[in-house]
Amino acid sequence: MNVEILCVGTEILLGDIVNTNSAFLARELASLGANVFHQSVVGDNPKRLKECLKLAIDKNDLVITTGGLGPTCDDLTKETVAEVFNRKMIKDDNSLNRIKEYFAKSGREMSVNNEKQALIPEGAVTLENNNGTAPGILIEDKNNNKTLIMLPGPPREMERMFKESVAPYISKRTGKTLVSSTVHIFGMGESAVEYKLRDLMNSLTNPTLAPYAKEGEVQLRITAQSDTKENAKSMIQPIIEKIKSIIPNEYIYGIDIGNLQTALVKLLNEKNMKIATAESCTGGLISKRITEVSGSSNVFECGICSYSERIKNKALKVDNNLISKYGVVSEEVAKAMAEGVRKFADSDIGISTTGVAGPTGATDKTPIGCVYVGVSTKNKCYATKLNLSRGKNDERELIRYLASSNALYIALTELKNN
Amino acid sequence: MNVEILCVGTEILLGDIVNTNSAFLARELASLGANVFHQSVVGDNPKRLKECLKLAIDKNDLVITTGGLGPTCDDLTKETVAEVFNRKMIKDDNSLNRIKEYFAKSGREMSVNNEKQALIPEGAVTLENNNGTAPGILIEDKNNNKTLIMLPGPPREMERMFKESVAPYISKRTGKTLVSSTVHIFGMGESAVEYKLRDLMNSLTNPTLAPYAKEGEVQLRITAQSDTKENAKSMIQPIIEKIKSIIPNEYIYGIDIGNLQTALVKLLNEKNMKIATAESCTGGLISKRITEVSGSSNVFECGICSYSERIKNKALKVDNNLISKYGVVSEEVAKAMAEGVRKFADSDIGISTTGVAGPTGATDKTPIGCVYVGVSTKNKCYATKLNLSRGKNDERELIRYLASSNALYIALTELKNN
Repeated sequence: MNVEILCVGTEILLGDIVNTNSAFLARELASLGANVFHQSVVGDNPKRLKECLKLAIDKNDLVITTGGLGPTCDDLTKETVAEVFNRKMIKDDNSLNRIKEYFAKSGREMSVNNEKQALIPEGAVTLENNNGTAPGILIEDKNNNKTLIMLPGPPREMERMFKESVAPYISKRTGKTLVSSTVHIFGMGESAVEYKLRDLMNSLTNPTLAPYAKEGEVQLRITAQSDTKENAKSMIQPIIEKIKSIIPNEYIYGIDIGNLQTALVKLLNEKNMKIATAESCTGGLISKRITEVSGSSNVFECGICSYSERIKNKALKVDNNLISKYGVVSEEVAKAMAEGVRKFADSDIGISTTGVAGPTGATDKTPIGCVYVGVSTKNKCYATKLNLSRGKNDERELIRYLASSNALYIALTELKNN
Repeated sequence: MNVEILCVGTEILLGDIVNTNSAFLARELASLGANVFHQSVVGDNPKRLKECLKLAIDKNDLVITTGGLGPTCDDLTKETVAEVFNRKMIKDDNSLNRIKEYFAKSGREMSVNNEKQALIPEGAVTLENNNGTAPGILIEDKNNNKTLIMLPGPPREMERMFKESVAPYISKRTGKTLVSSTVHIFGMGESAVEYKLRDLMNSLTNPTLAPYAKEGEVQLRITAQSDTKENAKSMIQPIIEKIKSIIPNEYIYGIDIGNLQTALVKLLNEKNMKIATAESCTGGLISKRITEVSGSSNVFECGICSYSERIKNKALKVDNNLISKYGVVSEEVAKAMAEGVRKFADSDIGISTTGVAGPTGATDKTPIGCVYVGVSTKNKCYATKLNLSRGKNDERELIRYLASSNALYIALTELKNN
């Protein structure tokens, strides 16, 4: 089943609001096994809307529109659809009663133009709006086997109506289910991953395998399609095994785990261990990411952002002589910071960052992007030197983010291996 | 000038990411005086992309694409555009050198398929990518007076390239110069702001005035159009004065200041004062935001993320009796945390957060979204209670973000008034 999503609304066209409706519908439709090859946005203009509708209906089995069902004279999706399908507009008594009830319940006055919301194209079916006034409308052209569904624009109304009325309708028509899994990779670039997996990707049709790059990480998404969820699931595992035989194990940090911080918090919980952070250049980003994860309070108690040398010494007991001898951005200071916070917090592992995020503060020895990540456990203490610059302007935030990701990854690797 | 926005990418088509690029481009194009009547999304599929491109070029003066410029074999926007425009693909030495430099600087290995990013359609012009490897491409068909501009998909790369290369190109073609200023508002909702300013907004045509809501903030954007930059600029100040006469002063935290953390760091620098943070529910987000600002090291030395009661006591000297008497999420503990970190860091002001971000941890007295922000200076100590829940699912990150924004705003207000 091929579906097109057509969002109607001048406020999306002008960029006043971000089009989250398209993303919601696309995701839901994909999980129902429908193909979406095209999404469009058009304003509240009958001529251009008509053109878009005709094109979309011509190329697809189902077209879903959002928006333009409101009570104002700008809202003309229904009227335009009725024209395209050659139907008259008729009053739907059932909808009119529901709208009247809705206003009576909320104690607001119903204005005359709300009655417009009860008009529907002849032969269409209404879909109940349990979060607002405008009903959805489903219209089938049985001769050409084309269906058009109109949903309201406000996400709260649209999403609920989709789940309650549209999803069951589509499932019934396609009889298909899709399941997907994500393999999370860190430390290997998108092109390198793609290069290694190209033959495998090209050889697959169902399941499919696709890489997505995301700020220093690569996610591999495997999607299988079958008649039942169980059958689709069973098709995925062999692909994961193949990926594991091609991508070295150290780069794969989890399957369907979400992100680095979730993987780390999960592993700490499993091991019943606690982590503490000492941050300089990342400024609190690592502790922010760890505490993003609900339940992190079991494994994280203390993060110290020691942005100055004075606080590195005062809070983390980093020896001032160490700082003057090796410099504040150094392996030795990173190690001392990790050790200092682990001891202060009485945790099982301490991690630290010290580096140059730029745009100022660079020296010959420590250029922009030079970051040390320190690790301290009861048995060992070490630091890793990273070069995170991509040589661009405005990369302060990117360097900080990559530094935090590397620190999370290094902690995860340390805990996995020991 | 009629422009169509065409976003290329299977991840948008599948709803894996929300299409913020369209919204950004639509808004920027509107402010440049260009008309956008249609936006489309299509996957990385040459046949369907070709169809969309042809339609878009046929109906518009300028088509802007995003995405599909990456190094993998999925990325085929350039090749497809070259076909539509009947051009060969040639190697652009300048781009190849830039990509090589990029990899050399970051010490990563350049894989063979990165060379693909240096191929461009014959006769096209490249646009510098100052945040990544893929250059943008501008291609003009002078016979038919059609232009197509290809931008990379990652928002960081695309937005910068638009501002640096595309906006000046469009300005030059339309012969118009636009200047805009932003008034930053915190603590007042979008509809309240809009209600107060509705008459002013409706009365204006040049300059224009438009509100944008952004995670708890409202930005008012004033855009003036004239023949020269100076003339356009001079039209803006009277509108700012009018806004100031309508919106109470306490809600306006700056003009063209970027964001709350930049305003705060700037004011601390001007006053030659230092701030320290003690964070519980925000988990380091406040210190992360402060240290985002280059030059923050002059005003910020120490942030303590005390996620457990034990660390609140050990690092911040919060009395355990206070915690057991009032609860850890309370006015008293927020005050003690702010006081504790100010004294430890020997700073001029200390700010703190303690609250319930959810989804767990709520009690009758402290439901999800209940957050206290504490402030301590040499002369006073107080805490503000906030209710930051919007009653939605998955609002942990939103609550944390709003808590950090409120803390920054409260610190800024305290420093302004004293």
